Amino acid sequence: MDHSQLYSNIVRKKSFLCIGLDTEYGKLPASVLGTENPVLEFNRRIIDATHEYAVAYKPNVAFYESAGAEGWLALQETVKYIRENYPDIFVIADAKRGDIGNTSKMYARAFFGLMDCDAVTVAPYMGEDSVTPFLSYSGKWIIVLALTSNRGADDFQYFSQDGTRLFEHVINVSRNWGSIDNTMYVAGATRAEMLRDIREIVPEHFLLVPGVGAQGGSLREVAEYGMNDKCGLLVNSSRGIIFADSSDGFDRTAAVKAGEIQKEMEQYLSQRGIV
Amino acid sequence: MDHSQLYSNIVRKKSFLCIGLDTEYGKLPASVLGTENPVLEFNRRIIDATHEYAVAYKPNVAFYESAGAEGWLALQETVKYIRENYPDIFVIADAKRGDIGNTSKMYARAFFGLMDCDAVTVAPYMGEDSVTPFLSYSGKWIIVLALTSNRGADDFQYFSQDGTRLFEHVINVSRNWGSIDNTMYVAGATRAEMLRDIREIVPEHFLLVPGVGAQGGSLREVAEYGMNDKCGLLVNSSRGIIFADSSDGFDRTAAVKAGEIQKEMEQYLSQRGIV
Repeated sequence: MDHSQLYSNIVRKKSFLCIGLDTEYGKLPASVLGTENPVLEFNRRIIDATHEYAVAYKPNVAFYESAGAEGWLALQETVKYIRENYPDIFVIADAKRGDIGNTSKMYARAFFGLMDCDAVTVAPYMGEDSVTPFLSYSGKWIIVLALTSNRGADDFQYFSQDGTRLFEHVINVSRNWGSIDNTMYVAGATRAEMLRDIREIVPEHFLLVPGVGAQGGSLREVAEYGMNDKCGLLVNSSRGIIFADSSDGFDRTAAVKAGEIQKEMEQYLSQRGIV
Repeated sequence: MDHSQLYSNIVRKKSFLCIGLDTEYGKLPASVLGTENPVLEFNRRIIDATHEYAVAYKPNVAFYESAGAEGWLALQETVKYIRENYPDIFVIADAKRGDIGNTSKMYARAFFGLMDCDAVTVAPYMGEDSVTPFLSYSGKWIIVLALTSNRGADDFQYFSQDGTRLFEHVINVSRNWGSIDNTMYVAGATRAEMLRDIREIVPEHFLLVPGVGAQGGSLREVAEYGMNDKCGLLVNSSRGIIFADSSDGFDRTAAVKAGEIQKEMEQYLSQRGIV
């Protein structure tokens, strides 16, 4: 999928919602725990109920990995389920990977070769040769950590040289590794006003924005500071949708929550003249 | 395992060698490919042949992950094999993980709960709350990326504020999150002279040094610039040991290669009066 196809999906669905599949075993409703593959069953029901409101799903790899090989199987099956049933949906492996070249090549093989994800989140600390192996897969994306939504973002991301902060330097340097068709940036919703500064460096790139919902970020502010004339945003919500209801009606509640966010997104897209 | 136990093992074995289990399926000798679990079989033979020369093994998670759930099973079985047969060996999951708190907690569960690794390598970009969940497991270690051995290290790790480079700032800040009993730093052998600068900030911490061997780093220089009076070094070699020989005698050749490195390490330990 390239930049313009992703934009088309946003226009068609009137949504730039990414739903985070942070599927924590300990939070699964009793009704799915009795099934053969509870994690897959939960994800399948969430995806079936919410897909019309979302343009992307983002499985958070850690939640699968915490169950080891079994969890990885559920991850692979989840990606396959989305691919087979909703082929227009953008699938992000939220993995924060990055290592020396021959090792990143192996991570790329996991997410783009073995699984057919569209994108993987990558940590920039180790530089160009830790990231570019992911770009050798045509049509696949990297989503580079720039400014994250957590408290710890303050520790290093604002470190600055000659007035340029590290997160800005990361964007400045890494935007030359790929293009707007294969590179996005993570920019946390909890620091929405910073999206303006990021937009000055990368006016056209898509930004993946976590932190709306449970982490306290405001969708209105994200749209105000981060949206460009091709939308340029994927805004993620995880817990606020998938774990909004612990009863057996969890999927219907998830659809209601996703639908509410989609309606709000439609307003902002409309104000901008995109839909 | 704490700092002094690790030091005791180094003194007893006259070695600070860590052997990297970057077990790439495509490089496995024909003789193990016919077995039921080729990756585990290869690792088992490497470990049995080399354990007397090494104080640590470092499975590189990407190489297992590239085979998905099946690869993860081989990783879990490899860690279990080391634990059961060579319980004094320090096991490092080379994973370069790091995410917001609730997510890092899941990664910690994978490597310290599900598997019984001693340490996991972590990427510092997201700051304190992305790293400290790993420290909630008593007796377990984080190994924080500081200065890596690859070319891309130049992209961001030398970014500097008021004369302090990012890798130094990372060490300065993060050394307060834990102690010398649960925190090490990655410092690449390809930049051995920098080890002197790192030693000024953390004179007592262990450093995990990759990049000797295939990547071109010099063991002599690493010992010269990085060793302290409790050794304070784990030096890793992967391909130069495990893939030195593609015949069925690969394990005997690995033992020879590991033994040569151990002999050289013994010299440096002896010069320092440690053994």
